[in-house]
Amino acid sequence: MRTEDDASHDEAQIRALIDARIRAVQAKDVAGALACVDLDMVLFDVVTPLAARGADAESARLEEWFASFDGPIGYEMRDLDIVTDETVAFSYGLNHYSGRTQAGALDMWVRATTGYQKSGGVWRIVHEHQSTPFDPSTGRPSLDLEP
Amino acid sequence: MRTEDDASHDEAQIRALIDARIRAVQAKDVAGALACVDLDMVLFDVVTPLAARGADAESARLEEWFASFDGPIGYEMRDLDIVTDETVAFSYGLNHYSGRTQAGALDMWVRATTGYQKSGGVWRIVHEHQSTPFDPSTGRPSLDLEP
Repeated sequence: MRTEDDASHDEAQIRALIDARIRAVQAKDVAGALACVDLDMVLFDVVTPLAARGADAESARLEEWFASFDGPIGYEMRDLDIVTDETVAFSYGLNHYSGRTQAGALDMWVRATTGYQKSGGVWRIVHEHQSTPFDPSTGRPSLDLEP
Repeated sequence: MRTEDDASHDEAQIRALIDARIRAVQAKDVAGALACVDLDMVLFDVVTPLAARGADAESARLEEWFASFDGPIGYEMRDLDIVTDETVAFSYGLNHYSGRTQAGALDMWVRATTGYQKSGGVWRIVHEHQSTPFDPSTGRPSLDLEP
């Protein structure tokens, strides 16, 4: 029988995984960020394409994204909910990215939903979906929304 | 100990929930669609706002969206993956929406990630994230992508 202790232990492990990934992104550490994801992860990213599969796709995306910043990447999370069972979990919340990019200042909130599986005692990210909504009245993505 | 039979039973229940919701959307049946969701669900929708909470928000969104169609709503899913444990599950895949709206013909693929919890023996949707990516070279949402 699964106890509340088991559940809070799993939630703590997932929170540690999320924290490790935040630190890796802030440090532009591709290998550190990839250590958190499953080799077969499916990525629905803020920008095109529609979908990508595999740690190689995530790696290429991170390399490109990290290189677009002049200086550090600001990355904080808000309103994070984690829902976990023994081997399956998901989380959802809002990510704030900020910094100076080659295209100008970035200061953007995106929605993030992440799916996790535990295998061999280790939680890893098997799916991630990050996005901005678009405004139907203008037909443009809403990049300046705040929670 | 959880068996493969248990897992396939849960996956079948979630698949039935997904199918019921597809039929409700196709029939513009708000009550039928709401029967699939938790009262406290958190919604990250294709269009603004950034986030909304509660079945009331989902209800208002569905009413407005259904009313924007002249005639039936085309709704099919592709590449659906369901990952389930005893009481927590998530799914991700691509949704194709089509039909005639007051704004013109709609024919659009979106990414969909859904989180489920089982309570009192019944699986319900507690979180849904649907989106289109945007194209950084044009700054516009990519509404014409195909899988």
